[in-house]
Amino acid sequence: MNIAFIGLGNMGAPMARNLINAGHSLHVFDLNKDVLSEFAGLGAKVSDSPRQAAEGSGLVITMLPAAAHVRSVYLNDDGVLKGIAPGVPAVDCSTIDPQTIRDIAAIAAQQGVVLGDAPVSGGTGGAQAGTLTFMVGGSAQHFAALKPVLEIMGRNIVHCGEVGTGQIAKICNNMLLAISMIGVSESMALGSALGIDTEVLASIINTSTGRCWSSEAYNPWPGIVETAPASRGYSGGFGAELMLKDLGLATEAARVAHQPVILGAIAQQLYQAMSLRGDGGKDFSAIIEGYRKKAL
Amino acid sequence: MNIAFIGLGNMGAPMARNLINAGHSLHVFDLNKDVLSEFAGLGAKVSDSPRQAAEGSGLVITMLPAAAHVRSVYLNDDGVLKGIAPGVPAVDCSTIDPQTIRDIAAIAAQQGVVLGDAPVSGGTGGAQAGTLTFMVGGSAQHFAALKPVLEIMGRNIVHCGEVGTGQIAKICNNMLLAISMIGVSESMALGSALGIDTEVLASIINTSTGRCWSSEAYNPWPGIVETAPASRGYSGGFGAELMLKDLGLATEAARVAHQPVILGAIAQQLYQAMSLRGDGGKDFSAIIEGYRKKAL
Amino acid sequence: MNIAFIGLGNMGAPMARNLINAGHSLHVFDLNKDVLSEFAGLGAKVSDSPRQAAEGSGLVITMLPAAAHVRSVYLNDDGVLKGIAPGVPAVDCSTIDPQTIRDIAAIAAQQGVVLGDAPVSGGTGGAQAGTLTFMVGGSAQHFAALKPVLEIMGRNIVHCGEVGTGQIAKICNNMLLAISMIGVSESMALGSALGIDTEVLASIINTSTGRCWSSEAYNPWPGIVETAPASRGYSGGFGAELMLKDLGLATEAARVAHQPVILGAIAQQLYQAMSLRGDGGKDFSAIIEGYRKKAL
Amino acid sequence: MNIAFIGLGNMGAPMARNLINAGHSLHVFDLNKDVLSEFAGLGAKVSDSPRQAAEGSGLVITMLPAAAHVRSVYLNDDGVLKGIAPGVPAVDCSTIDPQTIRDIAAIAAQQGVVLGDAPVSGGTGGAQAGTLTFMVGGSAQHFAALKPVLEIMGRNIVHCGEVGTGQIAKICNNMLLAISMIGVSESMALGSALGIDTEVLASIINTSTGRCWSSEAYNPWPGIVETAPASRGYSGGFGAELMLKDLGLATEAARVAHQPVILGAIAQQLYQAMSLRGDGGKDFSAIIEGYRKKAL
Repeated sequence: MNIAFIGLGNMGAPMARNLINAGHSLHVFDLNKDVLSEFAGLGAKVSDSPRQAAEGSGLVITMLPAAAHVRSVYLNDDGVLKGIAPGVPAVDCSTIDPQTIRDIAAIAAQQGVVLGDAPVSGGTGGAQAGTLTFMVGGSAQHFAALKPVLEIMGRNIVHCGEVGTGQIAKICNNMLLAISMIGVSESMALGSALGIDTEVLASIINTSTGRCWSSEAYNPWPGIVETAPASRGYSGGFGAELMLKDLGLATEAARVAHQPVILGAIAQQLYQAMSLRGDGGKDFSAIIEGYRKKAL
Repeated sequence: MNIAFIGLGNMGAPMARNLINAGHSLHVFDLNKDVLSEFAGLGAKVSDSPRQAAEGSGLVITMLPAAAHVRSVYLNDDGVLKGIAPGVPAVDCSTIDPQTIRDIAAIAAQQGVVLGDAPVSGGTGGAQAGTLTFMVGGSAQHFAALKPVLEIMGRNIVHCGEVGTGQIAKICNNMLLAISMIGVSESMALGSALGIDTEVLASIINTSTGRCWSSEAYNPWPGIVETAPASRGYSGGFGAELMLKDLGLATEAARVAHQPVILGAIAQQLYQAMSLRGDGGKDFSAIIEGYRKKAL
Repeated sequence: MNIAFIGLGNMGAPMARNLINAGHSLHVFDLNKDVLSEFAGLGAKVSDSPRQAAEGSGLVITMLPAAAHVRSVYLNDDGVLKGIAPGVPAVDCSTIDPQTIRDIAAIAAQQGVVLGDAPVSGGTGGAQAGTLTFMVGGSAQHFAALKPVLEIMGRNIVHCGEVGTGQIAKICNNMLLAISMIGVSESMALGSALGIDTEVLASIINTSTGRCWSSEAYNPWPGIVETAPASRGYSGGFGAELMLKDLGLATEAARVAHQPVILGAIAQQLYQAMSLRGDGGKDFSAIIEGYRKKAL
Repeated sequence: MNIAFIGLGNMGAPMARNLINAGHSLHVFDLNKDVLSEFAGLGAKVSDSPRQAAEGSGLVITMLPAAAHVRSVYLNDDGVLKGIAPGVPAVDCSTIDPQTIRDIAAIAAQQGVVLGDAPVSGGTGGAQAGTLTFMVGGSAQHFAALKPVLEIMGRNIVHCGEVGTGQIAKICNNMLLAISMIGVSESMALGSALGIDTEVLASIINTSTGRCWSSEAYNPWPGIVETAPASRGYSGGFGAELMLKDLGLATEAARVAHQPVILGAIAQQLYQAMSLRGDGGKDFSAIIEGYRKKAL
């Protein structure tokens, strides 16, 4: 199948490579000429515009930094919707607000194009290994059409409901993740300050009602989980700036929906403060550093 | 063995009954004459004071509402320390601040009495069924001495470290629990407001990085977990007032330790607001009601 | 002077009437036909588009609900920038984010048009009475040109710096106002719960270091300030929904600037919760109701 | 008049000196022998205990660090209540929780002794200059009796209501002060990050609805108020640790009263975090440093 792939950044490039490796023929587009050259070398057809990439493709995939890019890639004069044929499925894998993708999907529907959303989790490591999780919003039929292709790039393909629900699932999960991580950080730091062994505390939490992924699989206290970023100086993992992006999407969507998210909003500000301190490049579990004395 | 059991309230009474049922001989004390009559009928020896209960007992167990009671039950002129023989182990199962039990244990140690702490989780249901979790603080030797008796009343007996660490483990876990529950509530309410099916959202969270006990086992959205209080009008379970007590202990211990707990402090205030609204008697998962429109 | 006035809503209409009453000749535009008829009756020239309104005017004033409207009113094909003559000053009195007005001003500058921002405070009452405060962003020369006209509509015309600083001043002040109001609410409610007379408490605060406009001039406790909305059932005044709009602008600008605003973000969420309870139409000082028992 | 003065620390000593300078005869007690020698040199009679100090005095004044000291100074076997004559007024100037002073006053009343509370603001500078503010709780008659003596040590003597209300007024005012100061810090830091001149912003706030003592008289941005600690490296003034003490009293009193104080609780945690960073000795306005990049 000819697949248009638009957006070959840190995430998009390895995803697209996996599709090529699986035997698909790609029409690629990006603003970065270097990455286009690289993909030409891999046998992809380089397009001049999203429109050209979409022309003649049986599926369009986009992976872009923010809503403004998604909007222009689909809606501009040289955008996807000017080139895509009616009936061809399209899916946006960017992480953006739910309303933008709904709006664009409604416009696409007017010309018989079905557009869904499928934001991912798993980071650049998951993109390279083809082990991403895709949270897919769109009709059951659309999901069925996308699934075989998404399975080349990911391991866990989840249908969340109509278009936009992929984004909703992602921002709701990640907002909870941020809150849990800060909660675990406060709990571990408090326990340590009061005099309990942190390894003992973690093991009690992990068999009790405080149990959560942030404690069990990704504990922010160094040395508790060998494979966690906390045990290697908070490098790698899921950067605080990426968490900030998702928290911004969550609180903005909450604002539009008139829905209070008190801990979510504070989590955003605490990550903002971490970023201000110059630690935005560290893994998001480094939020615990703000709860410990500098000397530690 | 003769066991002194002091404090026969909602938790203490069923715990003591399980000891009697297991064949132990109890010396009981409480301020409530009715419960003493009941225990006399079960064959327990009723004492006039904590001191008398402790005299001739091979183990002293206390289960009291707050630190002031623990202090007076051990230290008063007719208190446990006036009656207990050197070498006899004592354990306080109350939930109080770590410092108080450390202070009393230090005084006890001066007369050769080893006092530990073993706060519980599992509620009145667990007390009746003998399935409590005990978080035990004290020496390894003390823990070994207590364990066989605690196993009559509980299923999960955890050694947390020196005296006071049982309390620390409990308040750190429960502070995290409160934060997680509010986080899940915000996440579920936001998802619902944005238009995702709440059952789908819960299932995605439960297989993702937002996964936690509050979502998996005790989801605050009605109907997600059949056995959770949310599915029966937030009755039963762990009352908000009890959570407030534990959050008060956590933030007060944090204050004394000069340790910030930002989300923990807000969790306390949100439960305080729930209590002010008149909902303190509901299960603590009813915190989600503040995030939903009244009509719901 | 011919003045183009675009946006005749609750604020814009009384402002424009004051200009007419002062003898100015107005070119008006709005999407609402009824208000255009009314202004035709007052002698204003009704335009078909922002572009037409701007043509031949010596000053352009806009007063619109949100950034999207400002963007289209200035930049669309029938927008202000298509009709305005080089050298003619323009000023946007809407309350929007600082970046949008800076972006539009930069585009305007390319064709020799100087655009500034001048958001107002004082509400519809101030708009009718001509007693608004204008926070003006733009060059000193631009400010000097606008001032005589703004003085017809307002009493306090403040120069805040370059374009965009009017918006910055407004959102920074209003974020602080929200925080102060909630702070006063918590302080008054706590004092009352602890047993001090609220009138005495207010008078002490007002002569102490807690002194602020929210306590002195606008106390949220009923009966303390006779003229405050609290003393008339929280009607009139500055609605909670309007405060929510400003808090949304503040936290969004903070997000873009990577600047943490912890109390500001919580204030936004507390007003969001007030709105969810159905009280968004009340004066913003009614936030205190969430801190008092329902029966009160 | 013979006045018993118990507690000659940083605050008590200069207060007592002012009484001696005004011609009063003092019976002093403190645990610090050095300060007792100094006061002996000033002509004061040194007592062996609070009881002895109270014997034969016509007024008892106490100024102590915390509730535990107040309790023992009044209630111990060698305490004030063992030595004071019926009808002699007593006043505690310590800053403690309202309930403790009410409890002690109730005990005192049983022996015909009227005890009131009169916590101060104004710091060691005010204590030396005799310009403190006294917030007095007690009957009107008690207030009338105390006033002439308090006026020697202070400039502003305010009657707040029955015993305990002095403490309530102080903690309510200071909780609001902390919230305002953080609010001003966030507002100034946000304005600066967005590009407005901070001096202009402060002047706008000071003539607008954000106006408060923390902005006008004590602005946390360096250089705005010449006499403020911010303009001398956050030295002098009201130390963050002292603010932490008052916030601890406020949130603890709120907890006991089942009264939520959301911003108050967060303010406490933010000062706790400031203390953890090692900045507890700085003036409380240095809270703004957490909102600015390190380089500043």
